[in-house]
This record gives sequence, structure tokens and C-alpha cells, in this order.
Amino acid sequence: MRKLSVFESISVDGFFTDAEGDMSWAKPAERDPELDAFSKDSSTRGGTLIFGRVTYEMMAGFWTSDMAKQMMPEVAGGMNASPKIVFSKTLASADWAGTRLVKTDPVAEIRRLKQESGPDMCILGSGSIVSQLSAAGLIDAYQFVVVPVVIGKGRSLFETVRDPFPIKLESSRAFPSGRVLLTYSKEVPGGKQPG
Amino acid sequence: MRKLSVFESISVDGFFTDAEGDMSWAKPAERDPELDAFSKDSSTRGGTLIFGRVTYEMMAGFWTSDMAKQMMPEVAGGMNASPKIVFSKTLASADWAGTRLVKTDPVAEIRRLKQESGPDMCILGSGSIVSQLSAAGLIDAYQFVVVPVVIGKGRSLFETVRDPFPIKLESSRAFPSGRVLLTYSKEVPGGKQPG
Repeated sequence: MRKLSVFESISVDGFFTDAEGDMSWAKPAERDPELDAFSKDSSTRGGTLIFGRVTYEMMAGFWTSDMAKQMMPEVAGGMNASPKIVFSKTLASADWAGTRLVKTDPVAEIRRLKQESGPDMCILGSGSIVSQLSAAGLIDAYQFVVVPVVIGKGRSLFETVRDPFPIKLESSRAFPSGRVLLTYSKEVPGGKQPG
Repeated sequence: MRKLSVFESISVDGFFTDAEGDMSWAKPAERDPELDAFSKDSSTRGGTLIFGRVTYEMMAGFWTSDMAKQMMPEVAGGMNASPKIVFSKTLASADWAGTRLVKTDPVAEIRRLKQESGPDMCILGSGSIVSQLSAAGLIDAYQFVVVPVVIGKGRSLFETVRDPFPIKLESSRAFPSGRVLLTYSKEVPGGKQPG
């Protein structure tokens, strides 16, 4: 069983992008070495990264740039080396190293992949994918970095969720820059978490 | 100078009510004595409570009911004894003990009150009031209780905010029920917080 998690920066008011799809509000105003160490750790674990088209195109452009390689060499190295899946009906090809383009339904494909053995999977950004897979009960863990900014209007990660669902707090951790990492797992009725 | 704070329960996806104005998703599934102690503490500090009409009507009905007085006697006592202001152009009168009805612009009235001496003020619920006063830079502190529930659609506290603004993390605290209290203060350009 491969586990599926999401890792997202969200504003205090709960959005992962602003109304125009911009995420620059999430950029730290100053360096936060503790957060950098955490990001480096997370990005070099070798899991499979999962994207929708919009986040994929943004990240593929960013992490392969000389700028990103200079500014955050370890994270860029980890991102570029990781196996990746992008879900898109419109992309003709996906050239970022290690990417497999999947044109079929994300829910069916992820359900299939979770039955296989292999590295764990992590969704970054990609609100429409998070929304669909959450509603289908396929996400095992959520990591939210709450950025200390109010943006007013934006896109939610859960905009197609119709039935409210509880999740289980696993831990919270404040970083020196004022970001707070909230880690949740899927709430299993009866209270027992799967191993 | 009277300080103005907000105290709000929000879903993981950042909403303070669902799309129909319902807040029952925020009710703890089980008792959390640590959170109860915190609520009791907060509600008996004697500050002035600030409301918009919708939250006022809901809370006035709830906290004066025999049910609330039996279930949470200290919190009900504190709520009923506190001085209160409700902003509404449509209410004819406001009968909950200690309430003053204000029919003029909340921004102007709060600006005036903050110049006076007197108890600190705290907004509960009342998204449209939070939104207006945030945009006007009048809120000194934010306390959010992040409830471990995803609700998908709802109302944001900041829906009329047009220009994103940073806030400063003061502390984070996880409660046994999986709620996380995030406390922020107004970010003052240059970094110094007012005393």
C-alpha cells in the first residue's frame, strides 16, 4: 500500500493561491533556516510527486531554472530527481525529468497506484486534484504550512468537497518565520488509524 | 487605548460558517477539558464583546438559554455579564443584558472607542465586521481556533479584504481535541509591536 499525502502552503484565510493563481504571498519575507531544513528533508525523501497541470507547469519551470538551483540547491536537486505524475487531459507531453503524463481520471489512477507497492506519493499545490482525491477518501495525510498572511480572496484546496469531513491532528510546529506546520491524518471512523 | 481582538473558530479550509451560516461543524465531537478551561478564562475577562447582527442574534439566544447555562455555566455567566456592542442598521432593539445597539458605521465607531480608556474589546464571529475592521487596520490581535474539519464551502472572515496583509504569529497551541489555537498580532511595518 502506497500512502498519499498533500503538502501545501495556505494563507491564514485558507487559500493556496490568490484569485489570479498567484502564490507570491507565500514567499517568506526573510530566510527561515529551520523551515529550509524541513523543506530540504521533505524534498529529498524520494517519494512520487503528484501534480495537476497548472502546478506542474509552474514548478517544472521554476525548479529547472538556474535561479532555483542556485538559491535552493538541495530542494531543487530533490524536486528534479523525484519521480512525478501529472494529471492533464490537455498536455501533449511532460518533459520535466522523471514525469509520467496521465490523461485518465485521477481518482481511478490513484486508487490503482495505492494498491501497488512503491514509494509514497505527495501532492503539491494542485487544488483540483486535492479536492477530487479528498472527496474520494484517498488522502492519508495532510501537511499545511499556514503562512501568516491574509489574502482576502483566493482558491481553496477543497472547493469541490460537498460533505464536511473531520481530519485528525497529528502535530503542530511553529517556525521562526511565523509559519505553522499543521499535520493531519485521515480520520478513520472508530478512531483507529491504519498502520 | 483600548485594544481590539478577534476570537474565531475556523475550519481547516479557513471558513467561520458554512455556506448556510451554520457553525455546528465547529462543535467538539468529545469534551476537551483543556479547551473548556481556556474558553472559561477568555469569557470571564470582562472585556467588551463586539458583534454584527447575525452572530449577536445567535449568541443572545444561545447563551441565555437554560441549556447553555447548564452545560457551560461559567462561560454562559461570563458571556451574559460582559458589556456588548452590536452593529446593525436593522435591529430595533437589543435586549441581551449589557448590550448597546450602534446603528452607525463600525469603522468610525471602533476608531473612536479605541481612543478612549476602558476594557479591551473582542469580536466573536461577525465576519462582515472582522472584514471591515481588518481592512481599516483596526484589529490588534487575532485568535483562531482551527477546528480539524474540512467543510468545502463557506464564508471567510476576510471576504472584503482587497490588499493582502501580513500578520505576526505570537503563539500556537494544540489542544487534546485536535483544535489548534493560533494567535497573531497586527504586523507593524518595521517590525515593532505596539506596547
